[in-house]
Amino acid sequence: MAVTKEAGLYPHLPKLRLDALRAAPLDPLTKGLPFGSDGLTLGAIGARGWSLTAGDLPMPMAVIRRDVMERNSAWMAAFAAANGLLLAPHGKTTMAPQLYDVQARDGAWAITVATMQQLEVARRFGVRRILLANQPVGRVEVAALMEALHDGGGLEIYCLADSAEGVAVLAEAASRRPPPPSHPLRVLVEIGFPGGRAGARGRAAALDVARAVAASPGLALAGFECFEGLLPDAASADGLLDEVVAAAGEAASRGWLAADAPLILSAGGSAFFDRVGERFGATLTGRPVRRVLRSGCYLTHDSLAYGVAFQRIRERTRLTLPPGGLEPSLEVWAYVQSRPETGRTILTMGKRDVSFDSALPVPLRWFRPGEMDRPAPMPPGHATLALNDQHCHLGTPGESPLRYGDMVGFGIGHPCTTFDKWDLLMLVDESYRVVDAVRTFF
Amino acid sequence: MAVTKEAGLYPHLPKLRLDALRAAPLDPLTKGLPFGSDGLTLGAIGARGWSLTAGDLPMPMAVIRRDVMERNSAWMAAFAAANGLLLAPHGKTTMAPQLYDVQARDGAWAITVATMQQLEVARRFGVRRILLANQPVGRVEVAALMEALHDGGGLEIYCLADSAEGVAVLAEAASRRPPPPSHPLRVLVEIGFPGGRAGARGRAAALDVARAVAASPGLALAGFECFEGLLPDAASADGLLDEVVAAAGEAASRGWLAADAPLILSAGGSAFFDRVGERFGATLTGRPVRRVLRSGCYLTHDSLAYGVAFQRIRERTRLTLPPGGLEPSLEVWAYVQSRPETGRTILTMGKRDVSFDSALPVPLRWFRPGEMDRPAPMPPGHATLALNDQHCHLGTPGESPLRYGDMVGFGIGHPCTTFDKWDLLMLVDESYRVVDAVRTFF
Repeated sequence: MAVTKEAGLYPHLPKLRLDALRAAPLDPLTKGLPFGSDGLTLGAIGARGWSLTAGDLPMPMAVIRRDVMERNSAWMAAFAAANGLLLAPHGKTTMAPQLYDVQARDGAWAITVATMQQLEVARRFGVRRILLANQPVGRVEVAALMEALHDGGGLEIYCLADSAEGVAVLAEAASRRPPPPSHPLRVLVEIGFPGGRAGARGRAAALDVARAVAASPGLALAGFECFEGLLPDAASADGLLDEVVAAAGEAASRGWLAADAPLILSAGGSAFFDRVGERFGATLTGRPVRRVLRSGCYLTHDSLAYGVAFQRIRERTRLTLPPGGLEPSLEVWAYVQSRPETGRTILTMGKRDVSFDSALPVPLRWFRPGEMDRPAPMPPGHATLALNDQHCHLGTPGESPLRYGDMVGFGIGHPCTTFDKWDLLMLVDESYRVVDAVRTFF
Repeated sequence: MAVTKEAGLYPHLPKLRLDALRAAPLDPLTKGLPFGSDGLTLGAIGARGWSLTAGDLPMPMAVIRRDVMERNSAWMAAFAAANGLLLAPHGKTTMAPQLYDVQARDGAWAITVATMQQLEVARRFGVRRILLANQPVGRVEVAALMEALHDGGGLEIYCLADSAEGVAVLAEAASRRPPPPSHPLRVLVEIGFPGGRAGARGRAAALDVARAVAASPGLALAGFECFEGLLPDAASADGLLDEVVAAAGEAASRGWLAADAPLILSAGGSAFFDRVGERFGATLTGRPVRRVLRSGCYLTHDSLAYGVAFQRIRERTRLTLPPGGLEPSLEVWAYVQSRPETGRTILTMGKRDVSFDSALPVPLRWFRPGEMDRPAPMPPGHATLALNDQHCHLGTPGESPLRYGDMVGFGIGHPCTTFDKWDLLMLVDESYRVVDAVRTFF
């Protein structure tokens, strides 16, 4: 494989920005903070001595098991390094600059974002290479994107294009506010598939977009990409990934790629990231290539679909797998609020607190304050039946130990839609003591 | 009907708190703010001259049509007044103190909340009567609830109970931190139904809870309540509501109700609120009664299920309906980001931006910046196919006018799960000019 390994281009986010975040008082009305936390700063939370199981925190409560998350980060970094991949983790998952910093420390090459608001969050917290994984649109959005190239700190921005209309808008904006010559707007042509999301349909359409980018001053054709995450299986993903490689080869042979930069090939949800590594490994032109994986969910992983997907990777991939592996680190805890009838328990957690789009949360552990030493595994027969806005209906077997006032910890499916329900998540140790907290910017 | 009309007990929220909210600078990274809005205050937004259709705002963008919302508020107030009902609108829907103020101005008797965090938001913004529509649970939650009774400003708090265990915890907390004699913790016994959510199952169980409340110093038995919103039809709702009336009658005859206060009967989602009015009208003991409706969604209404529910009310109710009626006032707007294939259009709006739990959003209007004077109704044949985290897949007929860069305005189903995706919503006039903005506290 012809790989330019170039990890850790920004070793850490500027300490100043994160320090300021940690030093600013939190809004005491933030969900998850104990009541009356006036004047409390983010950075002071870890020293409060709070314990989830001691009942120090209101519930529902979203927690990240820090050690598991750190292991996940290190595992993914090792996986990428062992297989000639660069990581541009999708920042939309967490929207937490403190977690971008963890990813940067472990060698992430860039942070991926989905919108201009997300790009602004990453930029203001000092990320110096950002991949906007969408075709820009909108007057103030495109203007802000062009302005960001003049950021002064050497910000490198990649974005997508999939149509002549989209390229024309970018080109027009670049002519009105020309980017610095050293910092053009780097464009990846998006390749889609029938019935899929955005992305040019067919190689001819993709190459038309590539030609238009190459011909536009201020824009640079950086490469090709796709999002294979919506496809049903690994074989379909392979077909799309191969198309990205093929289109890039043609664009290279026609001389459209930016002259002074390696070719970028990028893809990657969190389900088929092994396929990205395998298929992008295909030989290309002699030009240096950066194979950029955008998986966003690996820090927390999940207890449902991504767990299953990772099992497939373990069993099937020909890539190098480091020891260990991804484990779920994100949990949401709630109290048993009511035991109104056999078979049904009501808890203080609802659609506002936990993902419900890919699957309902799964009860993992339970704890009785004042009586138990540590959480116990949930006995068989418990399953989430439904969520309302603020309540969980848990199906409980006749012999369930649960009663009013007990705590239940849930594993989640699809971390993106749990993170976005919290301004603040607690980091806990393996005894559920709070060691730190992270702020999100949704 | 024996009704004590007692609207507007707090004419407005304390102006000072809302003024401070309006005077504080917003985080420039807030979703929905134009980029670079550093130092901008909430109160200054209305004077910026921003227009949605001029492209002054990033998208996606959640907007409330102010005039429609104001009419909805006035209509609901008139409906309540005409039918001997008091309003305690569920504040969990919007979590926006500025909108609580609109409801207070139009005579709301209380604000309802679901959690202690929500109670704290209402309390800190000066709401003086709060109905916590759940049985309290959790060490810090119950302690904060008891402390709030000592708030000093004469805060009146109602909460629910449905079990001896729950009452015992409240009683124990009240013995540790006795409420002021003038401000006991006022408890409504929750009555549920088989297969439903919380609430005592059966009258005997409900009366057991009532007896326990009546016997507990610091607690006062204020009445009975239910949540009929999860029932499938009006007839089932009637059965539950009648049970609330009957249980209250028995508790009154046994002398368990707090001596110095009217009996509270409360219920109400946003679908069957007419049934609450009709069934709670049944004759009771000679004691004054307050019939308290907790509907939370009427300010914005919706374009889907609540619209259908309101049509049933219009056609069937025997209550007095004021002229006019509820109309949807909440919309989410997005750009067309990609037109990759006939039949499918991709827009910049996803699960992070709009409700998808009760139904997918419905495209109402479209607009082409620079070419059209005002939004036009969406031609037939367009329908939302799916949402991803940050994208909408819109099904588009062959003759669809939509192209890259157009704007589409969506109506939503279930406002609760759209509000909670936004820290900031813009208030617009009927020309989509921004006239103000509201902050939420989720």
